[in-house]
Amino acid sequence: MGTPIVTAYPPSRAQQIRSFLRQHDLQAWIAWRPDELLMLAGYFPFWGASLLIYFADAEPVLFVPQIEPRDHIPAGLRVQEYPWGDLKCAHPYSVLVSAVGDELVKTRIDGEKVGINPSASRISLPIQAAEQIPIPEGFAAQLSVLGVSQDARCQAVFTDLYLRKTSEEVDAIRLANRVANVGLQVFFENLKPGIAEAEVAAAVESAIYRQIGRDGIFHSRGWAMVQSGPNSADAGRFNRSTARRLESGDLVLIELATCVNGYWSDLTRTAAVGSPKAEVEQILAVVREAQQAAIDGVRSGISAAEVDALARNRIAAQGLSSFFTHHTGHHVGFRYHDPGFGILPGESAKLEPGMVITIEPGIYVPERGAGARLEDNVLVTETGHEVLSRIEGSGQA
Amino acid sequence: MGTPIVTAYPPSRAQQIRSFLRQHDLQAWIAWRPDELLMLAGYFPFWGASLLIYFADAEPVLFVPQIEPRDHIPAGLRVQEYPWGDLKCAHPYSVLVSAVGDELVKTRIDGEKVGINPSASRISLPIQAAEQIPIPEGFAAQLSVLGVSQDARCQAVFTDLYLRKTSEEVDAIRLANRVANVGLQVFFENLKPGIAEAEVAAAVESAIYRQIGRDGIFHSRGWAMVQSGPNSADAGRFNRSTARRLESGDLVLIELATCVNGYWSDLTRTAAVGSPKAEVEQILAVVREAQQAAIDGVRSGISAAEVDALARNRIAAQGLSSFFTHHTGHHVGFRYHDPGFGILPGESAKLEPGMVITIEPGIYVPERGAGARLEDNVLVTETGHEVLSRIEGSGQA
Repeated sequence: MGTPIVTAYPPSRAQQIRSFLRQHDLQAWIAWRPDELLMLAGYFPFWGASLLIYFADAEPVLFVPQIEPRDHIPAGLRVQEYPWGDLKCAHPYSVLVSAVGDELVKTRIDGEKVGINPSASRISLPIQAAEQIPIPEGFAAQLSVLGVSQDARCQAVFTDLYLRKTSEEVDAIRLANRVANVGLQVFFENLKPGIAEAEVAAAVESAIYRQIGRDGIFHSRGWAMVQSGPNSADAGRFNRSTARRLESGDLVLIELATCVNGYWSDLTRTAAVGSPKAEVEQILAVVREAQQAAIDGVRSGISAAEVDALARNRIAAQGLSSFFTHHTGHHVGFRYHDPGFGILPGESAKLEPGMVITIEPGIYVPERGAGARLEDNVLVTETGHEVLSRIEGSGQA
Repeated sequence: MGTPIVTAYPPSRAQQIRSFLRQHDLQAWIAWRPDELLMLAGYFPFWGASLLIYFADAEPVLFVPQIEPRDHIPAGLRVQEYPWGDLKCAHPYSVLVSAVGDELVKTRIDGEKVGINPSASRISLPIQAAEQIPIPEGFAAQLSVLGVSQDARCQAVFTDLYLRKTSEEVDAIRLANRVANVGLQVFFENLKPGIAEAEVAAAVESAIYRQIGRDGIFHSRGWAMVQSGPNSADAGRFNRSTARRLESGDLVLIELATCVNGYWSDLTRTAAVGSPKAEVEQILAVVREAQQAAIDGVRSGISAAEVDALARNRIAAQGLSSFFTHHTGHHVGFRYHDPGFGILPGESAKLEPGMVITIEPGIYVPERGAGARLEDNVLVTETGHEVLSRIEGSGQA
């Protein structure tokens, strides 16, 4: 599968953003959420307390707290520091807001010509991932003293900027998938009766973390969730690892989120331990067939609903449609789940070159004590598609 | 260290909350952030999309999305499901808001008598920790159609509820520290020249994840950050792991956040590999002395500033005060960093029984290519303190 081809990728990120700003008569855009910073400027924040002003006609300026590491800030960003730390500054965000105001005055930009997205939800985590980002809820409201625009229509168009990945971004997502595959190898190696789900998951995450330092990787973190036997039937509702030990005859599912340098891969594999009953093996076989049918259909111009139907109809043909309870896929790359249209029934939006989507049908049958899902990350190209997550020589392609 | 004693713990959580509600003439409180749900009801959400109404005079009611696992919802919570999933419900939060409204009508409670905390920042992660919680920014504003109160003074008092842990909560934080110590053992075992920081950190996190299933542990996740040699001098500004390989003569610092069943431990250890230079060893020795001085001073009635001074003065006495760039500690337990007063200069708030704080002085000297921090979690008791993070038999107490 996958036809690696030279394709006309979408315009560069800078071109896409400038065109968006022109279209909305904006002179600048303010962003601070990790996935927004990554998408706008290729910068993945450590603390999540950095703020970018992207000007239509000048170099972007990046405000970082004093304590932010500097070694992975991309070239071409003018960096300004703001104070941080409880011994020095009790209200860093007030300082930040006034520094932003000063910058707008200096560049003679009217607040009304500056856009922000105040309502982003389900954003990605920064490098320091043990808490939510420190910038408080309501920060957009604090910025409103500067008169920045919060036009909802404009925000919807901004969200569209996430959809068409440039060639550099596709390479970064490819790398995340390569790292994820290192974790998946460990998953397959550990599939033996007697090992606990949490032990398998721990080994997978550990293998991913250890990739730091290879191929320019400065951040690599996996979230692995392993569900076996009857637990796999829950995987359509939630993914977690328990202390249950794998048994011969189980289906074992791994949901694996991987973040490498800020870019995300979102994969699922399901495999059998020993020889499951025929009614259990059927679940995995139908999912495999459904997933491949949908992947084979991915091309520029096809609608999301059509891709969904390719998977859904195969499952329905086996009388299992009521056990496929979720979408067939979503956009991926800047987040574990990128914003944008879903690959689901009734969605008329069409695929375009540069889009990266997941294809992840699943069937979960509690009464058979088994569930299966297979998920890959697929790039839409000019001539078809490329499966970014099937790595040659990994034994899983 | 540590005087494990039978102490008069703070009143039960329910008593503390009821007293708070009475004091503000409130009939209910609405919460949805993971640490709020944990503090109010001992419930740690999976998705982070659950909402609790805590009534002054009735059983709390918990709204959970259809896809939420049910097996760890504490007894005594009335559970109501709301729809979820892109095939069934495109706007789950609108459904949730109207379900909350229905509940208030049914219980004949006026919106004005219901409080919320709209501005919580730096909240903890739910079990599904690979993204921020799905409830969108501005959700509090959506609830405002119900007329709920957003009184700032009341919110400050609400935040105080985090500070005095009950005996059950202390036990849960003790367990988190016991698990964290399993990770720290792995850290010490791996301190050998040639191993990469990220490899040490990966092994620590893996050991923590593998604790699922022991002692009633259904969730166990660590975030380990290892900094060695010159990188340890950065640890006062940020913590991360790189590909640098440990060398003889290094100081190696581990910052370790551990979440067990929703309760947090926050620890730091620093150790030498081989025999560092005297000027490097001095850093660790002074930190050790400063930390012990502050821990020894922890008791009910002492102010935060006094505890801070115990550490800070020891460091100043060695002429190193400019290298101790942060607070001495903070509250911990419901989050990696609980809200509430810091243990820092000028803070007049006093310690009380049931408070759990970190004591974590550090000295970071770039020109010596070394930094050190030691961090423990300390419970204030009636007669002194107990160090929750020094586990007998772990070889580190």
